[in-house]
Amino acid sequence: MKNEYLISQIHKKKSFLCVGLDTDLEKIPSHLLQEEDPIFAFNKAIIDATHEYCVAYKPNIAFYEAYGLDGWKSLERTMAYLNENHPEIFTIADAKRGDIGNTSTRYAKAFFETLNFDSITIAPYMGKDSVEPFLEFEDKHTILLALTSNQGAFDFQTKKIEGHELYKEVLSVSKTYKGSERLMYVVGATKATYLKDIRELIPESFLLVPGVGAQGGSLEEVCKYGITKDVGLLVNSSRGILYASTDMDFAEVAGNKAKEIQQQMAAELAKL
Amino acid sequence: MKNEYLISQIHKKKSFLCVGLDTDLEKIPSHLLQEEDPIFAFNKAIIDATHEYCVAYKPNIAFYEAYGLDGWKSLERTMAYLNENHPEIFTIADAKRGDIGNTSTRYAKAFFETLNFDSITIAPYMGKDSVEPFLEFEDKHTILLALTSNQGAFDFQTKKIEGHELYKEVLSVSKTYKGSERLMYVVGATKATYLKDIRELIPESFLLVPGVGAQGGSLEEVCKYGITKDVGLLVNSSRGILYASTDMDFAEVAGNKAKEIQQQMAAELAKL
Repeated sequence: MKNEYLISQIHKKKSFLCVGLDTDLEKIPSHLLQEEDPIFAFNKAIIDATHEYCVAYKPNIAFYEAYGLDGWKSLERTMAYLNENHPEIFTIADAKRGDIGNTSTRYAKAFFETLNFDSITIAPYMGKDSVEPFLEFEDKHTILLALTSNQGAFDFQTKKIEGHELYKEVLSVSKTYKGSERLMYVVGATKATYLKDIRELIPESFLLVPGVGAQGGSLEEVCKYGITKDVGLLVNSSRGILYASTDMDFAEVAGNKAKEIQQQMAAELAKL
Repeated sequence: MKNEYLISQIHKKKSFLCVGLDTDLEKIPSHLLQEEDPIFAFNKAIIDATHEYCVAYKPNIAFYEAYGLDGWKSLERTMAYLNENHPEIFTIADAKRGDIGNTSTRYAKAFFETLNFDSITIAPYMGKDSVEPFLEFEDKHTILLALTSNQGAFDFQTKKIEGHELYKEVLSVSKTYKGSERLMYVVGATKATYLKDIRELIPESFLLVPGVGAQGGSLEEVCKYGITKDVGLLVNSSRGILYASTDMDFAEVAGNKAKEIQQQMAAELAKL
C-alpha cells in the first residue's frame, strides 16, 4: 500500500486507529472455544465489528506462534479474510524480526509475500543489512522500533550514544538506509513529550504508536506533539477493544469502543 | 538442558560444534524435492550424518517461516525427530525475538514448550522486561545478541554508550536481569579479538559464535580469546556443512565436513 492511499483512507474514515489483534484463547469469550478455529472466529467477529472505525489491523505474531501450526493457520485465515474483504485496510505484522541479510530476506518473504502483509515491525539492533532487505519490497513498509512503551526502553534506548539517545541514533542512521522512504517507526505513547524531539529528526514519517489506553498514553498528547499535516500517525489499541466485553456481546462492545476512539480521532483531525 | 550436561557432552564428543539448519529449498539436492516434506528429509539426513560430531543444532526460524504452514510443519517434525532420537543434543531456535512482557511470554511458550527447544536467540533492544519472561523457564536458555557478525553491527552495537560500546552495555546490564544465570550471548567470530574484552565482562557465560568459515572467522582465534576452563563456546557452521555437496552424496560430505571441524575442536580442547 502506498502512503498516499493510507492517508486518503485516514481522511475518509476520519480515523488513524490501528486495532491490535492480540488474540488470546484465555481471554476470548468461552462460547467461541467450541468453534473449529476459535482464534479466527474471534478475529472475524472483531474485524466485522470494527473495520468501519479503523485504518489498520496489527496481528501480534507471538500470539499465533504460541499455538504452533494451529496458530499459524489462524493467522493465514485472518490475513486471507482481510485481504479479500478489506484490501483498503493497512496490515501490520507485529513480529519484531531482524537478522543478517539473507535471513531478513526470508522473513520479508514470509510476511510480505506468503501472508501478504503491508508492513512488519523490525528491531534495529543488527543495523543496516538486517533492515534493508525489508525495504526492497515495493509498496511494503518496515516499521522500525525506535522508542518502545515498556519499562525496558530505559535499559538502552534512552541512553546517550554519539551525543544523543540511542533511539535518536536509530532514527538518524536509518534515514540513510536504501529505501528509507518506506520506513515507519514505533514510538510508545507513554512518552508523548518525546515526540517533539522525534518530529525534529523525522518530520514526516508515519509513527506507529502503541500504549494509548491500557498502557496509559493520552491520544490528545500524542496528537499535540506527533501529528503532521498528513497525519503521520497510526495509534494502536489492542486489549482495550478486544476484551472490552468477554460475553456474548463482545463484538458489539468492541465496535462501540473502536467508534469511541474514532470519534476522538475525528476531533483531532478536525484541528488540522 | 543444564549447563553441566552440555559441558559433559562437549567433553564426551570432543566438540563444541553447532550445526545451523538454514534449510533452503533452492539449495538442497534436487532429488529431495520429490519427497513429501523435502525440508524435513534434508534435515533428517543431515542430522543422521552429523550428530556424532556436534553438540547443538540451530534451526534458523526464518527459513521455515518463509514457507508458511508447510515450513512450520517441517520445523515441528525436525524438532520431534531431534527430541526423540537425540535428546542429548542442545537445540537453539535462532529466532531473534523480543517484545513487551506478555508477548515475550508467548514467544517463550512457542519455542520452549510447543516446540521444546532448549534455547532461543533474543534481540536486546527492548530491555529487561522483554528478556526476563524467557529467563523464567527452568533449564532453558536465552541467547542474547551482543555483537553480531554482520556489517550492520557497526551501526549501533560498537558505538559508545555510557562510556563503552553498546554491546558491552548489553552484557553489563543483562547480568542484572532476574534469571541471568540462564543467559548465553551471540558474539560474531569475525571480531575474535573483541572476545578478550568480552571475557572480562562475562568470564564464564556460554557464547554462541556464528561466522566461523563462510563468514570468515578463524576457530583458532576464537578459542585463543574466547575459551574458558568449561569451554564456554558453541561455534556454529551452517552453509559450510549443509551445502558442502549438493549432489546425491550431500549427507556423507556434510558428515565429513562436520568431522573435520570436530577434529580441529578436539585439538583446541586438548590444550585446556
